[in-house]
Amino acid sequence: MVTETREKMVRTAALLLAKRGLQGASFSEVLAASGAPRGSIYHHFPEGKDQLVAEALALAQARAMDELERHRGESAPDVARAFVQLWRDVLLASDFSAGCAVVAVTVAADAEPLVEKAAAVFREWQGILTDLLATGGVPSARAASLASLLIAASEGAVIVARAEGAIDRFDAVAEELVEVVAAAGEVSG
Amino acid sequence: MVTETREKMVRTAALLLAKRGLQGASFSEVLAASGAPRGSIYHHFPEGKDQLVAEALALAQARAMDELERHRGESAPDVARAFVQLWRDVLLASDFSAGCAVVAVTVAADAEPLVEKAAAVFREWQGILTDLLATGGVPSARAASLASLLIAASEGAVIVARAEGAIDRFDAVAEELVEVVAAAGEVSG
Repeated sequence: MVTETREKMVRTAALLLAKRGLQGASFSEVLAASGAPRGSIYHHFPEGKDQLVAEALALAQARAMDELERHRGESAPDVARAFVQLWRDVLLASDFSAGCAVVAVTVAADAEPLVEKAAAVFREWQGILTDLLATGGVPSARAASLASLLIAASEGAVIVARAEGAIDRFDAVAEELVEVVAAAGEVSG
Repeated sequence: MVTETREKMVRTAALLLAKRGLQGASFSEVLAASGAPRGSIYHHFPEGKDQLVAEALALAQARAMDELERHRGESAPDVARAFVQLWRDVLLASDFSAGCAVVAVTVAADAEPLVEKAAAVFREWQGILTDLLATGGVPSARAASLASLLIAASEGAVIVARAEGAIDRFDAVAEELVEVVAAAGEVSG
């Protein structure tokens, strides 16, 4: 039960970060949205809000990693499609009200350790995507830069889609990305 | 003099948005950073903070548009290089502490009109980039989606670079983008 409360608070913080940014994910908002009792804050997160945010980032990281792992061994374009789809799902499920918790922390954090945590998530995604793209047929010299392109363009396309409240330009970007990855694989093959 | 104070407040708000996000661009921060007298707030911005933020967005939009206009008539890869360079300059000039004011507003705004303003900036950039890429040799059917890719990937790469405090992955993304645009032009030629 105690563990459930804690997990619920972390999930709620991740959602609030994705929807309303770093300042929107305050303890009081997390309590209100998760229904956790006030006393649970310092019981579960003795180091304060930064600890809660760090765990929300870890959750966001793990979700993407788990989803990507499911596509290990698939062709590079399929891996690219899966990564893009992950973000498309976030946009559609939230009616364009949610984006990426890692982005939210990066653009608003004034605490160095939190930004370092965000960087660590990007590095993890970069690592697994590079690996999956290379395994899926992209020349290894190119896999890292295509992984960087996938991450950057997906994150940016999520932001544009949120601003516009429409999926069109996200889909245009996604199509370009899959095509670039496919072309890189063909050159090698 | 009055106009100078007003302009300085808008410039300061744009910088604070780019550096510290929407909540970091409060009136008190803008006053502290711009040295404007307290009374100037409601004199210059009777509609409050949202008015100031909207004008900061308009400034960010105009800066990018002016810079892009200077490259009208150049080849599509040169246009892509110029757009990417604009963001690279922001990162390096700020030692990775600043990003894009439009992104900052999108991921943290809870006011619909501000998000609509952010969307309008993205649309303006999309319009001019599509135009310049088509003029620069990209087939017109492809120009819009490549413009979307350029905007999304640049914005995302800025965020990753800020998190990491390093330019490497930004440069990898930039190189991929220029290459994609160049290849699209060759197909048409």
